[in-house]
Amino acid sequence: MTYTDLNTPIRTIMTPGPVEVDPRVLRAMTTPIVGQFDPAFTHMMNEVMDMLRVLFKTKNKWAFPVDGTSRSGIEAMLASVIRPGDNVLVPVYGRFGHLLMEICERYGAEVEAMDTEWGTVFDPADVIQKIKETKPDIVAMVHAETSTGCMQPLREIGQACREMDILFIVDAVASIGGADVRVDEWCIDGLIAGTQKCLSVPSGMAPLTYNERIEKRIASRKKVERGIATDEELRRQNTLFIRSNYFDLSMLQDYWGPRRLNHHTEATSMLYALREGLRILLEEGLEERFARHAFHEKALIAGIEAMGLGLFGRREVKLPTVTCIKVPEEVEADSVRNMLLTEFGIEIASSFGPLHGKIWRIGTMGYSCRRENVLAVLGAFEAVLIRHGVRVHRGEAVQAALDCYMKPAVKDPVNI
Amino acid sequence: MTYTDLNTPIRTIMTPGPVEVDPRVLRAMTTPIVGQFDPAFTHMMNEVMDMLRVLFKTKNKWAFPVDGTSRSGIEAMLASVIRPGDNVLVPVYGRFGHLLMEICERYGAEVEAMDTEWGTVFDPADVIQKIKETKPDIVAMVHAETSTGCMQPLREIGQACREMDILFIVDAVASIGGADVRVDEWCIDGLIAGTQKCLSVPSGMAPLTYNERIEKRIASRKKVERGIATDEELRRQNTLFIRSNYFDLSMLQDYWGPRRLNHHTEATSMLYALREGLRILLEEGLEERFARHAFHEKALIAGIEAMGLGLFGRREVKLPTVTCIKVPEEVEADSVRNMLLTEFGIEIASSFGPLHGKIWRIGTMGYSCRRENVLAVLGAFEAVLIRHGVRVHRGEAVQAALDCYMKPAVKDPVNI
Repeated sequence: MTYTDLNTPIRTIMTPGPVEVDPRVLRAMTTPIVGQFDPAFTHMMNEVMDMLRVLFKTKNKWAFPVDGTSRSGIEAMLASVIRPGDNVLVPVYGRFGHLLMEICERYGAEVEAMDTEWGTVFDPADVIQKIKETKPDIVAMVHAETSTGCMQPLREIGQACREMDILFIVDAVASIGGADVRVDEWCIDGLIAGTQKCLSVPSGMAPLTYNERIEKRIASRKKVERGIATDEELRRQNTLFIRSNYFDLSMLQDYWGPRRLNHHTEATSMLYALREGLRILLEEGLEERFARHAFHEKALIAGIEAMGLGLFGRREVKLPTVTCIKVPEEVEADSVRNMLLTEFGIEIASSFGPLHGKIWRIGTMGYSCRRENVLAVLGAFEAVLIRHGVRVHRGEAVQAALDCYMKPAVKDPVNI
Repeated sequence: MTYTDLNTPIRTIMTPGPVEVDPRVLRAMTTPIVGQFDPAFTHMMNEVMDMLRVLFKTKNKWAFPVDGTSRSGIEAMLASVIRPGDNVLVPVYGRFGHLLMEICERYGAEVEAMDTEWGTVFDPADVIQKIKETKPDIVAMVHAETSTGCMQPLREIGQACREMDILFIVDAVASIGGADVRVDEWCIDGLIAGTQKCLSVPSGMAPLTYNERIEKRIASRKKVERGIATDEELRRQNTLFIRSNYFDLSMLQDYWGPRRLNHHTEATSMLYALREGLRILLEEGLEERFARHAFHEKALIAGIEAMGLGLFGRREVKLPTVTCIKVPEEVEADSVRNMLLTEFGIEIASSFGPLHGKIWRIGTMGYSCRRENVLAVLGAFEAVLIRHGVRVHRGEAVQAALDCYMKPAVKDPVNI
């Protein structure tokens, strides 16, 4: 059997991730390898930590990537923080809230869930009320639910947790780099991000950050690795050690910190990619980048509505990086997606569980979030819907987006 | 603070990993992203599985990478197989045997270790005797101990385990692609590999394989994810579920298999890299590649011995991809390594724990394993040792290697 040269089709990727990667990031990955303890590499590790602190709006000492996909960062955080029997409150408003519950349960937490209808978020007062009733050790929730396109306000919940000395852990995989996230100001103790969405870096790293409150808990669970530990240390090992070795943040700290203790072999090329992605982000400017995401979201929404389609989810809590569209009753949702991909080379997404086949999701994230992509998806989407017999207002979608783009006073916040 | 263009020094990397990456692999990583369920991508996932089966010499259905460094693959295998209370026998002959013990303990195994002097391996008969005495559920061991440069014969141990219906799990991170590994013939039930050594792909993926014996055990521990499970399924959940979500091979199977159930977002660019690395390996040919590694190892050893230095470890069980050199008493080992790096741009390695400062380790792995690298490291190593006042046979090392390379009848097995 022979294997040909890698020759993938060029796609316009308008999903909520993985999205198109900035060509500069792709080029950075061709940089030759240096060893993991080469001063040139450890210097770069420190640079990445610095840049992550800016992205996270935090003064935390610890901000580094876990070598795995976003889910690995979520698991590293929860595995390191949750002691068996801890009470964790998880407010769930979409699929990724379920994932938090799932991981908490695997690590032996007593999980209390609260639910709200998908397509909405929680009134922070309701979450705070529930926290007061249940007095959990930890509150874990999703900032931006890609599955429903909704974003949860976190500030009041974070402040309430801090006042009650409860740890507050947030999954910001779908918002980071595309919408505002303020770790310190919102009193978030531990936050997990992803690379393959608004950072426009390939999937495979999970940047995270945590403060002294979490560091203290992790330190209390520290396990000294056999082969390094003394007999006395082995006797003193407590039973609350972190169950995972790969996800043991106390060991990752010693690798990312000045001790540089060998743990895993850092994923060299992915770190090159993350560094370049962060550099591009800081060159653009955080606030400018958020404005760009909001700007193209507006044009996309204008186009979708001009076509006569309806949006899913409460508008005032809409996630700016994901737009969910109700599937008209007469049409098979996946058939539309397939035709978009095979005929136009454009990828949009379905959703999960109860929403599969009910909504389409269009992402406007990172490098994918640009003028020509929004116009291309609107034009092609209209054509495919017409082909499927859906009655849309013909020719209106692209015009509505152009109205946003061509207003004399408006220009793209950043021309990428 | 400004961050400059990525501009790393070019290094000659002669460590046991991460090693130099084949330029073709670096170029493959610049390929634009396609979505994880794009037919172009799932086709590539299947190609990678096919190629891994050839590499592993197995007919196993399951052969795919875990998205993380080599250690993540080891943990995925052990986390998925070990049920709390399982008895695991770990024969330890170096640092990475300790790592196996460490991970087994974290997942609740009762670990029985057996030790032998570092620099040697076990007589298979001794391991089999121990298995008969202790009747473990699982035997876990390292095939190639990078920390000591030794390689353990596995065939007889594997056959004994199979006869006694014991699971046999092997860490082949340091040998795969550089020395012969025969999963089916040696009765290995689960095997973990790495990318950053003899495959010459960047660190960040851990290819593994396992057979029906392990698949059956994993299936018995299957946990249906909340949000997908029915009430009845939730009630029936057994308590033996796999503790990690990210490392749950039953879920990874459903993602890599025809069901394509969403788990993580596959690390796109790293999969491109792995595919290209495997393709290069199959073009070279497995046996030809092993011969190349043995060929350059021989030239390196000839040079080291001509210099008057001694090798560490029992010669007849030497790992062909790592050569360990005894540090002469009068010299500070790390000072030699640092000078090699800063003056010559050549990286060699130290070792761990009791061997730190006692041996140097030179890797001859994958793309790093080539004529000019072996000659460069020998010449520079001699110069640095002279600079450190070590009495070596001047000028002999490179000549001895050249004698190997320039014999009229000999040419490099493959000219890379």
